Amino acid sequence: MEHSEVTVLRYGHRPGRDDRMTTHVGLTARALGADHVVFPDNAGTAAATVQEVTDRFGGPFSVELRADQRAMAQNWDGTVVHLTMYGQPIQSVEEELHTQASDSESILVIVGGEKVPSEIYETADYNISITNQPHSEVAGLAVFLDRLFEGVELDRDWDGATRKVIPKPAGKQVIDPQQSDADEKSDRPTNADPDDWT
Amino acid sequence: MEHSEVTVLRYGHRPGRDDRMTTHVGLTARALGADHVVFPDNAGTAAATVQEVTDRFGGPFSVELRADQRAMAQNWDGTVVHLTMYGQPIQSVEEELHTQASDSESILVIVGGEKVPSEIYETADYNISITNQPHSEVAGLAVFLDRLFEGVELDRDWDGATRKVIPKPAGKQVIDPQQSDADEKSDRPTNADPDDWT
Repeated sequence: MEHSEVTVLRYGHRPGRDDRMTTHVGLTARALGADHVVFPDNAGTAAATVQEVTDRFGGPFSVELRADQRAMAQNWDGTVVHLTMYGQPIQSVEEELHTQASDSESILVIVGGEKVPSEIYETADYNISITNQPHSEVAGLAVFLDRLFEGVELDRDWDGATRKVIPKPAGKQVIDPQQSDADEKSDRPTNADPDDWT
Repeated sequence: MEHSEVTVLRYGHRPGRDDRMTTHVGLTARALGADHVVFPDNAGTAAATVQEVTDRFGGPFSVELRADQRAMAQNWDGTVVHLTMYGQPIQSVEEELHTQASDSESILVIVGGEKVPSEIYETADYNISITNQPHSEVAGLAVFLDRLFEGVELDRDWDGATRKVIPKPAGKQVIDPQQSDADEKSDRPTNADPDDWT
């Protein structure tokens, strides 16, 4: 897929309480076409789950823990997008963003967890809302990426996977693409991880 | 907005562990154009949060607790869509779904929590995946609704709200649309709820 390199920055994380949401931010970033996700350095549990899914279902995709999230946002060499319910509607900036995305070599997408400090609103090139309603940072990220990549992300290939789902009108089919067809497992769950979307 | 009536059914819920995910399913359903959300009857905490957001940010949108989720899916008078990572890619059935949506008076969208029983795969008219990768039921629901409604849901109006966000390039602005402009609060958080997407 030809596009700018996209990094998702999960801003803020409360261990325990936020583990699942942060994990879902990471898995959504991976599934919907981002190249990297960066979590706060106290989000090791979520990072391990995202890495484990990448190991089994393929990449390339990287997950990184960093303590200096504020500095990372401020010093970003590229376009900084902050997703917030207070920002400009995605549909009003989408076209401009596509132009920007083809010019910019790297895009940082900031997704808030705890309250995001006001300087992030100032640092961002774009504060963008997916509706101005309170809902979910995971939902916002998903719609943003799907629109940024214009659906192309849905057809991406995965390297190095040992688990691949074969889409079916009903039931479940999972194969190991590195093995022969004889290894095919049909109608059996993958036991992938407790947060798998079933 | 002219469209089929859409009900989102959250299938399965573990009190405590799933409270936040179920809440996000409900808030995402509301924000992205569904008309109703139905939770299992043990998800009262999540239902209360969704109702509270609807009371403040507007409707119409209903949240309901029901014990008979399986029967509800089986007896649905309309089209039943089950979102699952094992299903047919959204991009391959999207066009058919738009035709179906304009013919069907009501669409039930099933979003799994715990493992969904195999009979749901059989009951559904469509098992649909938003990528065949493990990620988040909230992300899957968001992309599905945005594509079902073709973005029209982003421009909907809300009735009866006492809180309305005025989109800004930076900062936060929230007004009470039922009061005069003098009541306007700028650059102050709404303190809406702990799960608000900031």
